[in-house]
Amino acid sequence: MLHFSDRTAWELEENEFTRRVRARRDAGLPLIDLTRSNPTQCGFNYSDDLLAPLSAAGAAVYEPAAFGMVHARQAVAKYYGELGANVREGAVCLTTSTSEAYSYLFRLLCDPGDEVLIARPSYPLFDYIARLDGVVLREYPLHYDPIAEQWWIDFVALRECMTPRTRAIILVHPNNPTGSYVHGEERRQLEELCVAAGIALIVDEVFLEYAIDASEPSFAVGEAKALTFVLSGLSKVAGLPQMKASWIVTRGPVDHVQQALARLAIIADTFLSMNAPVQFALGAWLANRAQVQNQLRARVHANLTYLRHCLRGTHCNVLAVEGGWTAVLQVPVSSEPSFADMALDAGVLVQPGDFYGMGTARVVLSLLTPEAEWQRGLAQLPLHSFPR
Amino acid sequence: MLHFSDRTAWELEENEFTRRVRARRDAGLPLIDLTRSNPTQCGFNYSDDLLAPLSAAGAAVYEPAAFGMVHARQAVAKYYGELGANVREGAVCLTTSTSEAYSYLFRLLCDPGDEVLIARPSYPLFDYIARLDGVVLREYPLHYDPIAEQWWIDFVALRECMTPRTRAIILVHPNNPTGSYVHGEERRQLEELCVAAGIALIVDEVFLEYAIDASEPSFAVGEAKALTFVLSGLSKVAGLPQMKASWIVTRGPVDHVQQALARLAIIADTFLSMNAPVQFALGAWLANRAQVQNQLRARVHANLTYLRHCLRGTHCNVLAVEGGWTAVLQVPVSSEPSFADMALDAGVLVQPGDFYGMGTARVVLSLLTPEAEWQRGLAQLPLHSFPR
Repeated sequence: MLHFSDRTAWELEENEFTRRVRARRDAGLPLIDLTRSNPTQCGFNYSDDLLAPLSAAGAAVYEPAAFGMVHARQAVAKYYGELGANVREGAVCLTTSTSEAYSYLFRLLCDPGDEVLIARPSYPLFDYIARLDGVVLREYPLHYDPIAEQWWIDFVALRECMTPRTRAIILVHPNNPTGSYVHGEERRQLEELCVAAGIALIVDEVFLEYAIDASEPSFAVGEAKALTFVLSGLSKVAGLPQMKASWIVTRGPVDHVQQALARLAIIADTFLSMNAPVQFALGAWLANRAQVQNQLRARVHANLTYLRHCLRGTHCNVLAVEGGWTAVLQVPVSSEPSFADMALDAGVLVQPGDFYGMGTARVVLSLLTPEAEWQRGLAQLPLHSFPR
Repeated sequence: MLHFSDRTAWELEENEFTRRVRARRDAGLPLIDLTRSNPTQCGFNYSDDLLAPLSAAGAAVYEPAAFGMVHARQAVAKYYGELGANVREGAVCLTTSTSEAYSYLFRLLCDPGDEVLIARPSYPLFDYIARLDGVVLREYPLHYDPIAEQWWIDFVALRECMTPRTRAIILVHPNNPTGSYVHGEERRQLEELCVAAGIALIVDEVFLEYAIDASEPSFAVGEAKALTFVLSGLSKVAGLPQMKASWIVTRGPVDHVQQALARLAIIADTFLSMNAPVQFALGAWLANRAQVQNQLRARVHANLTYLRHCLRGTHCNVLAVEGGWTAVLQVPVSSEPSFADMALDAGVLVQPGDFYGMGTARVVLSLLTPEAEWQRGLAQLPLHSFPR
């Protein structure tokens, strides 16, 4: 018998909800999709010249560089300048995705069995990356305060998660799907905690520029007391997920940064995964990001306003959302059938909260959904099964 | 103190030879480089339209697919059809590099501490990938038979390398730097061995089409008795290392292939590292590969002929080379200063054999070196310090 690894021994069967969605689609029944979050397929306008910079003459030549070509890294440094941060290109490492960035960092910091802390709720992709790299994820809770209308990090629980094998804390800033930024006082506490424990901060800022009701600066701004890796990429920053351009910025105490960069350079040099055309185009895409960002922000704002309007007079409510592309809907039902099941029966697809580790009394909607679809979908949601 | 992983605790100091090369360059002394193997910087002609297919309209849209877009995988399947193999696109997984392909396969087959067998001599990149993925490499020897003028796999030693934790055997076909294909009888034995042990074959065929004095078919041709992963990519196949397009073809017994593909799909879906423009261009680049391959083969042939000419009347000789881009030079000196050191003093850069794990009495030259440089370099090599 052939042996496959335990780290890929996933449960390959689809879950019941996914099976029901597929069955409905296979039966040709209509389904309004309120989870659409691929910006290239949500009716936004991109520049007609979008693909032109891929044909820069320099892209005919291979010039391998562990962290990526200097001009591309300078474009990323310039981007941070525009966010108010002083980042030099030598601290920038380009990657083909934030997944690859996480995988580099997990292997930089962790040996098999070492641990990384991650918020719950969060996007479940991390489980897969960590498991493939032999890293154990431990979850610290984010709680929602309905009075202050704000998510907060449970530091008591976070400290309890820490063991001698903890190597890093992951922050998603703002987090997906809660839309919550790491607030100033939380940042200060987290940095102190990391310095005291000798561990690193990994800060994923892909949604940073999509502030809605509040905002916080990038972790690339200001002094970094802890060894800090700031991650972002064009998928969200320029609405270009198909271009596969992301990066890691390394910050913190000089000696830690030097060691981290020296090791990271060997990891990156082992894979050299970024192609030349995208590196040549990166600067132009970053420079033009406002064009797409403005459309996305307008969509998010309009959809959120409309959603709040629809929820009046129901027992459902949308949790406060500071930034990002998603809304979390609190519904007064957590038993079978779940709200997501009821929505599906009504012909509307929403993401069950348990996908993100926050139970079935919360569901997640994508605020990028095209507006007509959004309005039809919300009209069909069983919101009024629960009149106030 | 901050903790970094043991798996990245590399010896970061440059070795003595690298230090001497750098010192010579820093001093502004001339150096003829006989190790140049970047095809985009060796004076070959590429199509003027090389970059045009990157601007396919479809590349403006993101359509995530774990193994890559169907049309790109069909182009790879067609490529194998031209090699005489029957490959369906469902068995093709696109990756951004063969390094990434190896990393996917190591994690598919191995848990931390599991073992993979690799030939010695071979290209040292594997050590880095394996170590990052917690995989232990064990080396089986390739020996050179000076009478038959052929490299052969030492099966006795290979069997001794196998333990209960062995999960795969890597073959580079033809191997770098020895230029030796896996011969028919070796292939039969290797497949039997893998079937009996329940382990997989990983076959790297990036140089397959660069046959010189002999050739062997792809491992994608004919029946695959063992679970077999065939790797290749545009870096060598189309002389386009800057495009970062590689792939894995999975073959073998149906049930093993199904399991492998199901797990591999989740790995690939976790990273989704290939961008859309390159996937749209892949077919055109593969279709036009002969234009570049022909120039490379002509260069390799001319340089090898000239090299043999230069070695007449010396105690140096070039080992038989069946395929690929490199020549191994056997020199009658293995003590300090090594031949590579003496060459460096004479203003010529060659790769010391110990870089590939074959001692200092062999050095490696790139047969892609531009012809004028090749001739000047060979004239300056201390070949006649050892008259026959």
